[in-house]
Amino acid sequence: MASVDVPVALLGYGTVGSAVDRLLREQAADIERATGHRLRVVRALVRDPAKARGSDVPVTTDFAEIRDDPEIAVVAEVMGGLDPAGDHVLELLRAGKPVVTANKQLVAARGAELFAAAAERGVQLRFEASVCGAIPVIKVLREALVVSNVHRVLGIVNGTTNFVLTEMERGSSYAEALAEAQRLGFAESDPTEDVSGKDAAAKMAILATVAFGSRVTLEDVAYEGLERVAPADVAAARAMGMTVRLVGAATLVGDRWDVHVGPALVDRSHPLAAVEGAFNAVMLQGDAIREITLEGPGAGGIETASAVVADMVTIVGTTGTGFLQNDACWRDLARLPEGELASPFYVRVEVADRPGVLALIALRLAAHGVSVARLVQEQTEENATLHVVTHEAPAGRLRDALDEIDALPETRGKASALPVISDRGVAGLGWA
Amino acid sequence: MASVDVPVALLGYGTVGSAVDRLLREQAADIERATGHRLRVVRALVRDPAKARGSDVPVTTDFAEIRDDPEIAVVAEVMGGLDPAGDHVLELLRAGKPVVTANKQLVAARGAELFAAAAERGVQLRFEASVCGAIPVIKVLREALVVSNVHRVLGIVNGTTNFVLTEMERGSSYAEALAEAQRLGFAESDPTEDVSGKDAAAKMAILATVAFGSRVTLEDVAYEGLERVAPADVAAARAMGMTVRLVGAATLVGDRWDVHVGPALVDRSHPLAAVEGAFNAVMLQGDAIREITLEGPGAGGIETASAVVADMVTIVGTTGTGFLQNDACWRDLARLPEGELASPFYVRVEVADRPGVLALIALRLAAHGVSVARLVQEQTEENATLHVVTHEAPAGRLRDALDEIDALPETRGKASALPVISDRGVAGLGWA
Repeated sequence: MASVDVPVALLGYGTVGSAVDRLLREQAADIERATGHRLRVVRALVRDPAKARGSDVPVTTDFAEIRDDPEIAVVAEVMGGLDPAGDHVLELLRAGKPVVTANKQLVAARGAELFAAAAERGVQLRFEASVCGAIPVIKVLREALVVSNVHRVLGIVNGTTNFVLTEMERGSSYAEALAEAQRLGFAESDPTEDVSGKDAAAKMAILATVAFGSRVTLEDVAYEGLERVAPADVAAARAMGMTVRLVGAATLVGDRWDVHVGPALVDRSHPLAAVEGAFNAVMLQGDAIREITLEGPGAGGIETASAVVADMVTIVGTTGTGFLQNDACWRDLARLPEGELASPFYVRVEVADRPGVLALIALRLAAHGVSVARLVQEQTEENATLHVVTHEAPAGRLRDALDEIDALPETRGKASALPVISDRGVAGLGWA
Repeated sequence: MASVDVPVALLGYGTVGSAVDRLLREQAADIERATGHRLRVVRALVRDPAKARGSDVPVTTDFAEIRDDPEIAVVAEVMGGLDPAGDHVLELLRAGKPVVTANKQLVAARGAELFAAAAERGVQLRFEASVCGAIPVIKVLREALVVSNVHRVLGIVNGTTNFVLTEMERGSSYAEALAEAQRLGFAESDPTEDVSGKDAAAKMAILATVAFGSRVTLEDVAYEGLERVAPADVAAARAMGMTVRLVGAATLVGDRWDVHVGPALVDRSHPLAAVEGAFNAVMLQGDAIREITLEGPGAGGIETASAVVADMVTIVGTTGTGFLQNDACWRDLARLPEGELASPFYVRVEVADRPGVLALIALRLAAHGVSVARLVQEQTEENATLHVVTHEAPAGRLRDALDEIDALPETRGKASALPVISDRGVAGLGWA
């Protein structure tokens, strides 16, 4: 098949944009050999033309020069942010141009609107790089698992928090671990987005949307970060052959979904427990596949650029066939009521070291139908700490039991509870 | 985009073939929604028409009825075996029909010839289901990692042996573990193909061909199975925080490759160590991605069928664009000389329990430039067992040292050596 010259454009020419340009040049022979196409950046939108010096890519500050150029076959949005990136992508799709975006915030906030615009014009919007860097989870979900009815996505989708938890497990304090992550460039100087769970929530919104075909935005995701993970949780996890991870869980039960991000205890034999440092992993569970786990680097300029290039190449190779040009977000399902999902839980509560307290706690749990699988009592200076692992229980029932336990005069402080991912066949994953 | 009716045919209508037919029917709405196409089986080639009773798929015993039907857009070969499947696939490609095959033996033996025939006619040959069941490693290698220069593929690609090793680690003997695998349907009644490493070798040949773009056949893969894995190796691995796995390793060094299957010790922190039971995993290492690991069920009728359907859908969605219609096997690279690849090794040797023997062994290793990282001496009834972990050393040098050690009068039996995968940054993986 003869090779075809394909002019492409970039919105943005920062770290990712210039890496995309470089990959397209350096790997031109590989791309042409594999696909028969030569992709070439003919224009890049920049705010400050001086910043793109050193490259021979023609730059412009006028978006219309890209939107209105009939020669340009694909556009990669690598500028980031919601504004003006969102309107630019929408205008490009409406103008009939296929778009690749690496913009997690944008897809999480306006994905459904953008997918609809793409479907209406019969052009593709691809967004692999918006979730988990170089791990091709979107391609796998949309193309390889098209007949698999994926009903759960479990993910470690934030490298910063995973690095911090891995370091805490090795004995660092939270502050030390975070400082080390910043020193190594895994964490921003303002790490709020990462440690609050918000970054992971945006990624889980995108994964849930694609996996379930229903619109899930960042606002729909209940999330928490590492705030309430205490060194005692990390130590207790280790003592039980488990590890603490910040887990995103998207679950489809019948026609209703739940998407949640929060800390969980993961059994050492579970694939997600093996994810160390700044790596990401996503486990997909579905009918025809049981489960598939993808693991790799979740961030990085060159990793993100390689995902952008792969999407561009795929678009060029599938244009005009109707392949994946329909709306990925084709139904509107409701959210599961909070507290319905069940899991086993690890509960830690400090109590007065007095006869009968243990029975009191066990009774409160039993009153709400929460049964105890394992209990360890540990002496502290004046009090006792109870470590409880429950059998599977709906998160709402556990929450009710904990509220009563917190109100007991024998309880010191508040009980903490984390869901436990004990094996691969987990029925649900709720946070109390 | 209007939906398009796409007639397809099957070669074979056994477990996988009938599951493909069922998935295409049951998931028709999902496929149409995602891709705009309706795939429908219009003919199936069978040897015995009576066996396809219970289905309303029109069957034939005449291959020409499929090859010569201009209406049929895609054919899935799910009959298995080399003959007549190989000639059928070749004839279909030459007739301009895209083909999906689930046939590992066929792709490993005749892949290069089939790829060339497909490229010549500008049609696609897809073979995801031929390697690792539902794990979409071929799609990821060919489409997502097109600019990543993958230079190493490490895989646990045989579920039977992984199940046996997992059971041995839990205390079963080899015979007990194999019987249990047979009872659960993970192992055939004649398990030779699996336990000899030959099945894994065929899969690694396919993965190496695709990853490096160079023809590697089953004959090019040096393989061994579980024959020389002793309970002592499993116990020693556990004592060192490692586990024994049957690992396939395809390595590209400059312009030369090495593909090998054999038992190795894998550090507990390595993603491949977490692969338990009959699961498979493949780790891809490349320039732009560092490493991506895919894990999932490596076999099963429905899993294989889901991979076949995904390939059929992708072909329908990318026909006529030139996408992936070039030869995946475009260069002819040479093999690395045996013994050149270096790794750390675990060596176990039984020696006379006499002063000076330890020094003798260490001297023989040192004479060949193999340095010792760790040594444990263990008393047995009359002799002593030395457990040695070496620093990274070329396999050939270790082999030379072991030959000399085996010839010492103080040595009892033969020394055994297994490569060690100690961390993610392994430089090579050689077997001595």
